[in-house]
Amino acid sequence: MSLLIKNGEIITADSRYIADIYCEGDTVTRIDRNIEAPPGTEVIDATGKYIFPGFIDPHVHIYLPFMGTYAKDTYETASQAALLGGTTTLIEMACPARSDDTLEGFHTWLAQAEGRSACDFTFHMGVTKFEDQTEAQLREIVAAGISSFKIFLAYKGAFGIDDTELYRTLKLAAELGVIVTAHCENETLVTERCKELLAAGLTDPGQHHESRPPIVEAEGVHHLLTFAELTGAETYIVHLSCKEALANAIAARQRGVKVSVETLIQYLVLDKTYAELPDFEGAKYVMSPPLRDKTNQDILWNGLRDGLIQSVATDHAPFDFADQKHMGENDFTKIPNGIPSLEERIHLLYTHGVKSGRIDLHTMVAIASTNIAKLFGLFPRKGCIQPGADADLVIFDPNHSGTISAKTQHMNVDYSAFEGWPLHGRSDTVTVRGQVAVKNGKFVGNPTRGEFLKRPTRS
Amino acid sequence: MSLLIKNGEIITADSRYIADIYCEGDTVTRIDRNIEAPPGTEVIDATGKYIFPGFIDPHVHIYLPFMGTYAKDTYETASQAALLGGTTTLIEMACPARSDDTLEGFHTWLAQAEGRSACDFTFHMGVTKFEDQTEAQLREIVAAGISSFKIFLAYKGAFGIDDTELYRTLKLAAELGVIVTAHCENETLVTERCKELLAAGLTDPGQHHESRPPIVEAEGVHHLLTFAELTGAETYIVHLSCKEALANAIAARQRGVKVSVETLIQYLVLDKTYAELPDFEGAKYVMSPPLRDKTNQDILWNGLRDGLIQSVATDHAPFDFADQKHMGENDFTKIPNGIPSLEERIHLLYTHGVKSGRIDLHTMVAIASTNIAKLFGLFPRKGCIQPGADADLVIFDPNHSGTISAKTQHMNVDYSAFEGWPLHGRSDTVTVRGQVAVKNGKFVGNPTRGEFLKRPTRS
Amino acid sequence: MSLLIKNGEIITADSRYIADIYCEGDTVTRIDRNIEAPPGTEVIDATGKYIFPGFIDPHVHIYLPFMGTYAKDTYETASQAALLGGTTTLIEMACPARSDDTLEGFHTWLAQAEGRSACDFTFHMGVTKFEDQTEAQLREIVAAGISSFKIFLAYKGAFGIDDTELYRTLKLAAELGVIVTAHCENETLVTERCKELLAAGLTDPGQHHESRPPIVEAEGVHHLLTFAELTGAETYIVHLSCKEALANAIAARQRGVKVSVETLIQYLVLDKTYAELPDFEGAKYVMSPPLRDKTNQDILWNGLRDGLIQSVATDHAPFDFADQKHMGENDFTKIPNGIPSLEERIHLLYTHGVKSGRIDLHTMVAIASTNIAKLFGLFPRKGCIQPGADADLVIFDPNHSGTISAKTQHMNVDYSAFEGWPLHGRSDTVTVRGQVAVKNGKFVGNPTRGEFLKRPTRS
Amino acid sequence: MSLLIKNGEIITADSRYIADIYCEGDTVTRIDRNIEAPPGTEVIDATGKYIFPGFIDPHVHIYLPFMGTYAKDTYETASQAALLGGTTTLIEMACPARSDDTLEGFHTWLAQAEGRSACDFTFHMGVTKFEDQTEAQLREIVAAGISSFKIFLAYKGAFGIDDTELYRTLKLAAELGVIVTAHCENETLVTERCKELLAAGLTDPGQHHESRPPIVEAEGVHHLLTFAELTGAETYIVHLSCKEALANAIAARQRGVKVSVETLIQYLVLDKTYAELPDFEGAKYVMSPPLRDKTNQDILWNGLRDGLIQSVATDHAPFDFADQKHMGENDFTKIPNGIPSLEERIHLLYTHGVKSGRIDLHTMVAIASTNIAKLFGLFPRKGCIQPGADADLVIFDPNHSGTISAKTQHMNVDYSAFEGWPLHGRSDTVTVRGQVAVKNGKFVGNPTRGEFLKRPTRS
Repeated sequence: MSLLIKNGEIITADSRYIADIYCEGDTVTRIDRNIEAPPGTEVIDATGKYIFPGFIDPHVHIYLPFMGTYAKDTYETASQAALLGGTTTLIEMACPARSDDTLEGFHTWLAQAEGRSACDFTFHMGVTKFEDQTEAQLREIVAAGISSFKIFLAYKGAFGIDDTELYRTLKLAAELGVIVTAHCENETLVTERCKELLAAGLTDPGQHHESRPPIVEAEGVHHLLTFAELTGAETYIVHLSCKEALANAIAARQRGVKVSVETLIQYLVLDKTYAELPDFEGAKYVMSPPLRDKTNQDILWNGLRDGLIQSVATDHAPFDFADQKHMGENDFTKIPNGIPSLEERIHLLYTHGVKSGRIDLHTMVAIASTNIAKLFGLFPRKGCIQPGADADLVIFDPNHSGTISAKTQHMNVDYSAFEGWPLHGRSDTVTVRGQVAVKNGKFVGNPTRGEFLKRPTRS
Repeated sequence: MSLLIKNGEIITADSRYIADIYCEGDTVTRIDRNIEAPPGTEVIDATGKYIFPGFIDPHVHIYLPFMGTYAKDTYETASQAALLGGTTTLIEMACPARSDDTLEGFHTWLAQAEGRSACDFTFHMGVTKFEDQTEAQLREIVAAGISSFKIFLAYKGAFGIDDTELYRTLKLAAELGVIVTAHCENETLVTERCKELLAAGLTDPGQHHESRPPIVEAEGVHHLLTFAELTGAETYIVHLSCKEALANAIAARQRGVKVSVETLIQYLVLDKTYAELPDFEGAKYVMSPPLRDKTNQDILWNGLRDGLIQSVATDHAPFDFADQKHMGENDFTKIPNGIPSLEERIHLLYTHGVKSGRIDLHTMVAIASTNIAKLFGLFPRKGCIQPGADADLVIFDPNHSGTISAKTQHMNVDYSAFEGWPLHGRSDTVTVRGQVAVKNGKFVGNPTRGEFLKRPTRS
Repeated sequence: MSLLIKNGEIITADSRYIADIYCEGDTVTRIDRNIEAPPGTEVIDATGKYIFPGFIDPHVHIYLPFMGTYAKDTYETASQAALLGGTTTLIEMACPARSDDTLEGFHTWLAQAEGRSACDFTFHMGVTKFEDQTEAQLREIVAAGISSFKIFLAYKGAFGIDDTELYRTLKLAAELGVIVTAHCENETLVTERCKELLAAGLTDPGQHHESRPPIVEAEGVHHLLTFAELTGAETYIVHLSCKEALANAIAARQRGVKVSVETLIQYLVLDKTYAELPDFEGAKYVMSPPLRDKTNQDILWNGLRDGLIQSVATDHAPFDFADQKHMGENDFTKIPNGIPSLEERIHLLYTHGVKSGRIDLHTMVAIASTNIAKLFGLFPRKGCIQPGADADLVIFDPNHSGTISAKTQHMNVDYSAFEGWPLHGRSDTVTVRGQVAVKNGKFVGNPTRGEFLKRPTRS
Repeated sequence: MSLLIKNGEIITADSRYIADIYCEGDTVTRIDRNIEAPPGTEVIDATGKYIFPGFIDPHVHIYLPFMGTYAKDTYETASQAALLGGTTTLIEMACPARSDDTLEGFHTWLAQAEGRSACDFTFHMGVTKFEDQTEAQLREIVAAGISSFKIFLAYKGAFGIDDTELYRTLKLAAELGVIVTAHCENETLVTERCKELLAAGLTDPGQHHESRPPIVEAEGVHHLLTFAELTGAETYIVHLSCKEALANAIAARQRGVKVSVETLIQYLVLDKTYAELPDFEGAKYVMSPPLRDKTNQDILWNGLRDGLIQSVATDHAPFDFADQKHMGENDFTKIPNGIPSLEERIHLLYTHGVKSGRIDLHTMVAIASTNIAKLFGLFPRKGCIQPGADADLVIFDPNHSGTISAKTQHMNVDYSAFEGWPLHGRSDTVTVRGQVAVKNGKFVGNPTRGEFLKRPTRS
């Protein structure tokens, strides 16, 4: 069956024009003015709406055994929430523990997704150890279509790798043309500071950011990028939160180190005072790196505007407030980390970025779709609107007004960090490879249409 | 009449696909596969070729009374040379002397171009003084369609402005939504060092770069960007040549200062040893800022790759070697500045950037077309390929091999700084708003088709 | 007559021991334990006291026609206040207006001091223009014993010099081995911002710091040090007040630029909220550069501790609150600049630096005496305690407690910026070249003992 | 017995005058002009000579089991070589392997020195692990008079500590008022690069510096100083060799981190081309961090001049060329590290620093004696010339000319890295606590006069 979207204003990173889009099968096949619909074509009138290429969230967690519990979403819930928020592709981290076999880990994660996702998906392969057989397994995984790794400088013992593993991972990545995404916080500093805070009786959620101040993150970035410089690997800093870390990334870039930077929507609109809310409310706002001083928000927005930061993700990791977050009631280090935002990323970006004049529409598309597609080997299948590209399209109503609430959200979690916040704009209609998945802001699609995206390495 | 380009691979900053492009009148009206040509349509087969949006040179001089002589090109010669090199839009600087009236200056420059250009053109309005009536005149010029100013921190007495004029220009620009492009070299340091060198009997072309070392440029950038920070003006550093200046621009950007950076193709492929060639040969390579130490080339290429530098221009200013450059035979300060490159920019960028793996094709389009269009109010009329955009198209043969020579060039100047250099790729066919101007690498177009482009200010 | 000081603890920049000091005529002639006093010797028991080398204030104004009025002190009042505060040498700025003759200016200033000062003194020669005859006059002044210049990047029209004058001054200084002290604020930015503030009706003293934010000072430092780098001149930044300016100085030092940095006692203990005090009280705290955000205090103290900042001065410039400061009641730009501190510098430094653990005693001596003596050609005549050195000695009681008050101060000004502040330590006895000038905290000396100190240039 | 040194020119960090020095027992008791010698006093005429406080080498190895062999010197040979070079105090590193007990290690090292040294000595206690009993042992060692620790970020497995040990060491040091000296090179980068080079057949001494480029050291400095910032510990970077590492130290200092920097005489006068000498000659110049590009020399000299670098040491570690260095003939990683320089440090500093105008005499004393004494709790017993201080004095003939040769040196090693180099100045006479140890450049002293110096912690 075919689909025709008429009269929308197509907005990509580098174009803006009104045209019809005709989709056959999975792909856009024609973009033109006044396309005639063959009989049987589903026709959508997009007059007065923007049409964006489907947004990509490059950093989500769905199947996530973490801190003794599991993140609440499944691919069923997460993929639909994503689509309702305009996100049509998820990049999850396959995240085996150090005690797990890497290859088995990959298949475990793949199995959680296949046949259960409403939108397309792929994985960063978590390299959480580098043993004798790891290299061969990673080569196999890359051959299977995974062209990005994920490493942790933090979470030693769980996912974190040591310096020798780091070096070897980067070297292999450089050889294979794989980009290495990295969580940059110095593990030991966090651990020791947590001990000190707890020993001092400081146990509330507001201590979380005290346990990992900006220089802990800056140190992680500096460390990674020294290793990247000497191995020649291409790197990508996930969830960069603050000025100090950004300055280190930019300094490395000026030396020629290949590094891109991702920030999160949470850092752009929230600050550390939220984590200090009384009555354990702050626990809703505990994630790592932590929410920072508000002065960092302008720095991150300007970084996106000026091309110093390449992407905006969510690090989506939903844990219920009622029971899961409460595991840390007497010990902030036991609060599962994460601020669920998968569903709201694009709408917050539009409301707080575009409407407030901080970034323009093209920049929004670039940082939430096109740049990500290019960095992770999805372009031009994803990230743009052109004949031959997947028909992942977002028909966006810029005039819609709404309000965020846990009651109406689709992420499987019992709270919203943005409860009651007004939103401008809505992803009215969203398609997944040519099929309508969201209509009038409601999921109407095929809950298992999503496919695993195999991605090529850098040539 | 209409034009149909078939089967080319369209490459823009954010897309890449094979399609036909149909142009009616001035604009692209359809992009689709298998477009049928109505009778009378001119059809070009672009199979195996790239199709780029027409490139824009944001920094050229054509009518240029300078150092007691005139640059050699006219709009007739320059616009055709530009088109043969894939450049379809020129942004010239209207450059009245301080002794001239600003508004008259604008009209003088406009008169040099109107009716004489084969490609479209517009101007940065040179603000070379800021007197009582200047503000009103600038408002009038902006209303006439000029949304960028050009200022000089160098060339005091001729074009350079003092700090009070600088502040007022930036403040007016901030108010009007005009971007201010700036030549950043500290005037006094250059003047004093020239005197010292000449006094020491050091008169050869190789002294030129000694007279304006990197920190002279870095100082200019620092100075401008302090003023930009305090006025809120949007700025654009023209012809940035070196690490020190770039570091200052990036530092300011990290503080939130609005600044974009242009480098020149000359700095990317030449270095200061050329200016030291014996027998006055070095004079061919005298421009300002001067060619730098070769270590800067990697820094500039990486800056383009990573988004730290936004554009590549030429500062085209052709002076004959035989007589004009020789004016400085016994005094390097009398050598007219400029290394003509208008015709070769894109081909050098492709050969030394894309073919050598330093940047990809999308980046090439971004830095030589799309970014420039966006910065200077030409987007989406220029800088992209979409229905409704001007049909300025470059059909580029990536497999062509050629050689640069003054004998075969079309710029009106008696030498080439790149004599004998091999080139990869050629702009086979180039269109100007839907009309073929270049065919098989030869100008076949309407020598007066070019129009003055009125540009809006930032909203 | 001779003087014997017994059993004090001598504290210099690099020594600490208990000994007797014997002075004959102007100089220390013996330092030893158990020196026997010849008959007729004046003997002072310094048991339990520190003995410091006389402190030097490298930046004071005494004869100061400024902003249409005169600073209140004369050499009579200022030199006695200095001595009561432990300062035994003043370096004043000879500060002719641009309309004055440089050489005459020098003699004017010299005449204000000679025969009227209780302590020794010398001058930085203000280079407030650089005309044809200036070079010869400066050579004559240097030959007369002046080995430091002072320049202003601010106060254009009054004292400020343009870039050409700056370059020539620095070049001459480099040739002569003269150090150039510089007031670093960009003039134009201050002027324009003042106009804007006044135009907006913002006229109160708290606007003063808005008119010259930190980057105005940072820009001045960057500018000066680029010129210093290219001329090779040795430079000294006076009254550095903030992180941004310090960062620029340190960056230049890392490039090899010869630059020392002076901060003021005011910036170490006051912050900009003082200038925002209501009822025009803030006017007492108006000086340039202005008092800054409190976060700068730690940066300055650490800079002193770590050797990043070389000296602490006062920029003493006393204007009465009752009439002079009130000239700016409706226009902050008309408030005479200055926070009188000559008398309190050392005691504040001891109280807020040494007693609070920020710096040690040796550092206090270094930054308020030894470093200054070395930088300005007074060492080892001043700045140390050794046989042959001038017997300028401060017998300091570390256990004294006092309170600052305008009522009890000796500076000729009607207010104290530190009214009611507690002080620790007191300069009990102070000698001027072997004669007791202060005893038990009271001036008992010869009001005209002070001599003009001729200083050699750098060899 | 007493000693009288007459008419020398005393030069300390902050004084310069001609006087007699009278020593009784271990200490200077009088400094005065025209001291009368009691009968039996040994009198030395120092007319025309400088008298410096004894120099201190804060970084030497004597008992050094390393890389399967032992450094050649014993306390007998090393202490006499030191004295002949003007160095009167050694700070050795007590350097137990990780497999050794820390407290036993301390006593092992102490036993190597006690009763065998001609000059005074003390130790940095090597913290090469941090196990359960380590804290108690370190407290005991500190109580025994050791107020500085030494840690290695490099040499993992041998001496290197991990991040948790680093944090705990720094925290304990902060609590105790102990300064932590640190070897800053990232271990893993060195190890992995060595493997790569060897695997590529690159085995010659010139590869050593390729295995640990500047950013390996910069990374170590950045890492240490992040930990220092969060623990509040006072730190001291040993053997800093390059611009990149210095920049990191200075950046941290600007943030308020307590850090001092030591460079080595070798980095000031040698560069990496020495390590590339053919016929395995380069092995003589292998040390870590390695000799660097010559451009670093100016940066280090300027750093000393401007107070950015606090001290100059040797990291003395003598291994014979004939057999020991040759262990690495086919594998540069097996070359024992070290360039013996203990005997030549001061004379090279005078020749290449003072005589060439890079630093003045006071700076030489500061960086090779006074600053070190202050940093490591030896001041004012050492590092100055004052009544009560140890009579460690160097009577230095500035007019002496000599030549360096392995044949005439006293260090127990079969080569000199400076063979044939001319020297200016000589330590003619050197005293150890009031006894003449060197006379006319020959050792004439008591070979076992040296004592273990107990040092207090920071109060």
